[in-house]
Amino acid sequence: MKTEGSARRGRLTTPHGDIETPVFMNVGTLAAIKGAVSSMDLKEIGCQVELSNTYHLHLRPSDKVIRKLGGLHKFMNWDRPILTDSGGFQVFSLASMRKIKEEGVYFSSHIDGSKIFMGPEESMRIQSNLASTIAMAFDECVENPAPRDYVERSVERTTRWLDRCRKEMDRLNCLEDTINRKQMLFAINQGGTYKDLRVLHARQISGMDMDGFAIGGLAVGETHDEMYDVIEAVVPHLPKDKPIYLMGVGLPENILEAVDRGVDFFDCVLPARNGRHGHVFTNSGRLNLNNARFETDDAPIDSTCSCPTCKSYTRAYIRHLFKAKEMLAMRLCVLHNLHFYNTMMTEIRDALDNGTFSEYKERKLAMVRGKL
Amino acid sequence: MKTEGSARRGRLTTPHGDIETPVFMNVGTLAAIKGAVSSMDLKEIGCQVELSNTYHLHLRPSDKVIRKLGGLHKFMNWDRPILTDSGGFQVFSLASMRKIKEEGVYFSSHIDGSKIFMGPEESMRIQSNLASTIAMAFDECVENPAPRDYVERSVERTTRWLDRCRKEMDRLNCLEDTINRKQMLFAINQGGTYKDLRVLHARQISGMDMDGFAIGGLAVGETHDEMYDVIEAVVPHLPKDKPIYLMGVGLPENILEAVDRGVDFFDCVLPARNGRHGHVFTNSGRLNLNNARFETDDAPIDSTCSCPTCKSYTRAYIRHLFKAKEMLAMRLCVLHNLHFYNTMMTEIRDALDNGTFSEYKERKLAMVRGKL
Repeated sequence: MKTEGSARRGRLTTPHGDIETPVFMNVGTLAAIKGAVSSMDLKEIGCQVELSNTYHLHLRPSDKVIRKLGGLHKFMNWDRPILTDSGGFQVFSLASMRKIKEEGVYFSSHIDGSKIFMGPEESMRIQSNLASTIAMAFDECVENPAPRDYVERSVERTTRWLDRCRKEMDRLNCLEDTINRKQMLFAINQGGTYKDLRVLHARQISGMDMDGFAIGGLAVGETHDEMYDVIEAVVPHLPKDKPIYLMGVGLPENILEAVDRGVDFFDCVLPARNGRHGHVFTNSGRLNLNNARFETDDAPIDSTCSCPTCKSYTRAYIRHLFKAKEMLAMRLCVLHNLHFYNTMMTEIRDALDNGTFSEYKERKLAMVRGKL
Repeated sequence: MKTEGSARRGRLTTPHGDIETPVFMNVGTLAAIKGAVSSMDLKEIGCQVELSNTYHLHLRPSDKVIRKLGGLHKFMNWDRPILTDSGGFQVFSLASMRKIKEEGVYFSSHIDGSKIFMGPEESMRIQSNLASTIAMAFDECVENPAPRDYVERSVERTTRWLDRCRKEMDRLNCLEDTINRKQMLFAINQGGTYKDLRVLHARQISGMDMDGFAIGGLAVGETHDEMYDVIEAVVPHLPKDKPIYLMGVGLPENILEAVDRGVDFFDCVLPARNGRHGHVFTNSGRLNLNNARFETDDAPIDSTCSCPTCKSYTRAYIRHLFKAKEMLAMRLCVLHNLHFYNTMMTEIRDALDNGTFSEYKERKLAMVRGKL
C-alpha cells in the first residue's frame, strides 16, 4: 500500500472482513454506542470497526451470557470487525481496592464492589467468550506522571503478561468450542513519557508474534507535543508490516498528526461524548448547538456534510431538542460527530491513495480549527 | 368506504396527503417522538400522522420561531399530516394559577411560571403559526368527576369557544402570509360522563362547519366501560361523513373496542411511554423486558413482528441495554411499540376492507391479552 512520509495507507484482513486503514473505531463500550445509536445506524455513518470493552461486558451482562448468545457480533447485530479493549485501562481507571501482583490484578467492581481477579489469562478468556475480531493484550496502564523506577518495573511485568496473553490466546483459538478461532491479538506498548523505556519495550514486543501493536497509556494528561514525541520515538521500532494503534486518541487534529507519524488505528469516546452535549465538529470549526444564536438557524450543522442528521435537520431544530431535553438531540449529534470522524478517515485514505496527504492534512487542520 | 356494524373504513384527504382510517397518530409532543425516534424512523414504522402540542410548542421554542422556520413540517422534517392539539388539555392538566373566564384562560407556565393568556383566538393563531394539517378547537377539559352544573356551564362555554375558533381559523386561512391556508379544524365534544350533556353538545357542534369531531375529556380516570358508554352515546349524534377522533386513547383493546363503536382517529402517549420503561406489546401479550428471565433469551420481542427492532435485536440484548442504562434500549422499545400500534391499525383497515373486522377484533383481543 502507499506511504507518504511516515503516513501509510493499509488494509488489515480479518475473519470479519477487511479494515481499510487509517481507521477510526467507533466506541460502544457496553455493546452499544451511547446516544441511542444502533448497529444499523453505524453502517449508515460509515463505521468499519466497533470497539467494546472487556471489563464492562465482563461485569454486565457478563462474557458468559454473551458467549451463550453466540458472541458479541450476534449479540449486538454487527457483522463487521469488533475490537475489544483488554480491561487493563478500566481496571486502573475505574475499579477500586486495586492490588497488582505478578499473577494479575485484584480489585473491586465499580458497580457493586464485588471482588474480582483479572490477569492475562482471564482477560483472554473473557475476550474469547466475547469472540471479538481483535483482542487487546492485558497490560498495566500506569498513571502519568509516574516515577521512572515504577514505570520500568511495570513495563517489564506488562511484557511478561504479553507472553502469557499470547500463550493463552493460542490455546483458546485451538479449542473446538471457541466461537472465533481466528481471534487476533494486538500488543500494547507502555512506558509513560520515558521515551527510552518506550523504545526498549517496543523492541521487546516487536519480536513477539502479534497481529498488531498499540501505543497505550497516552492521552492521560500529557501535552499533545509530549504525545507526538512518544509516537515519533516508538513507531520506528515497531514492525513495518503490522498495524499501529494509538489508543484513546483523540481530536481530529491529533489524529491527523498521528497518521502523519505512522499510526493506523484510532479510537476515542470524544465524538460521541461531545455530541451528547451538543458540541459538534464541522469543516469550519466546532459549534455548541446550545448557543442562543442557533435559535432560528435553518442551516444543517455542516452544509458540506452528508450524514443522516445534516441531510434532514437544522441547527434550530437540534437546539430546540436540547432545550426541550429530547433524547433525539443527543442521537442526531452523535450520528453527525461519528460520521465526521469516519468521513475524515476516508478523506485521509483517499489523500494517501492520491499522494496528497500532506496538503490534505494542512487544509483539514485549518478547517477543523475554523480557520478556512 | 366499507363499514361493519358501527366500525368504518375511511380516508381523509388533507393538504399533506390522504389519511387512511382508522388511524393511530404517533405523539411527538415537542416536535419529537420521545426515545430518540426521528421523523425518518417514523416513516420506517408506518406512521401516517404525527401529533404535536400547541401549549408545549408555544412555550418552547415558541410558535413564532417555528413559523419563522417555515412551520412544523419543515421544522421536524415530516411531510405527512400533522395534528396539533389545541393546548386546552395541557392548560388544564399542567399549568398552574389557572383562571377561566369567558374570553379564555389565564395561567402560569409550568416551566418558568410566566403569566400567559390563551383563548380560542390565541390557540388558533398559534396553530396557524405551527401550520399543522389539522388544528384542534380550544376547549375546557373538565376533571372527572365534576359536578353536573359545572360541566353544563363549561360545555356551553366550549360551544361558544368553538364558534370563535371557527371564525378565527377562517380569518387566518384567508391571510396571504399564512403558511398552511388549508388548515383543517376539528371540534371537541365534552360533557364528562353525563351522557345527556355529551349528546346535547354533540348535536350542537354537529351543525357547525368542521372537518372532524373529537371526543375529549375521556381516559381521565373513568372506567373502560364508562368510556365505551360515552362513545356509544355520542357517535350516533355526530355527522356520518366526518372523521371521529377519540383523544388520548389508549390500550390496544380500547382502540379495538372504540373502532367497533365507530371511532376513526386515535392518539396516546402510552406505547412510547411504556416502551421507555421496557414494557412492550406483542401478539402474545405484554412483556417487561427488565425481567431476569430474558437474560439469555435470543428471540426477538415478537417473532411475528417486522419492526426494525425485531428484525435485528434480541430480548437478551435489549434487557442488557436497560440494565446498562443505554439510551438505545428506550429507542428500540419505542420503535417496536409504535410499530405494533401502527401495524394493528393496518390490520384493522384490512379486516374492514375484507369484511372480517368482527373475527379480527376477537382474535386480536385474545392476542394482546396473551390468551392465544
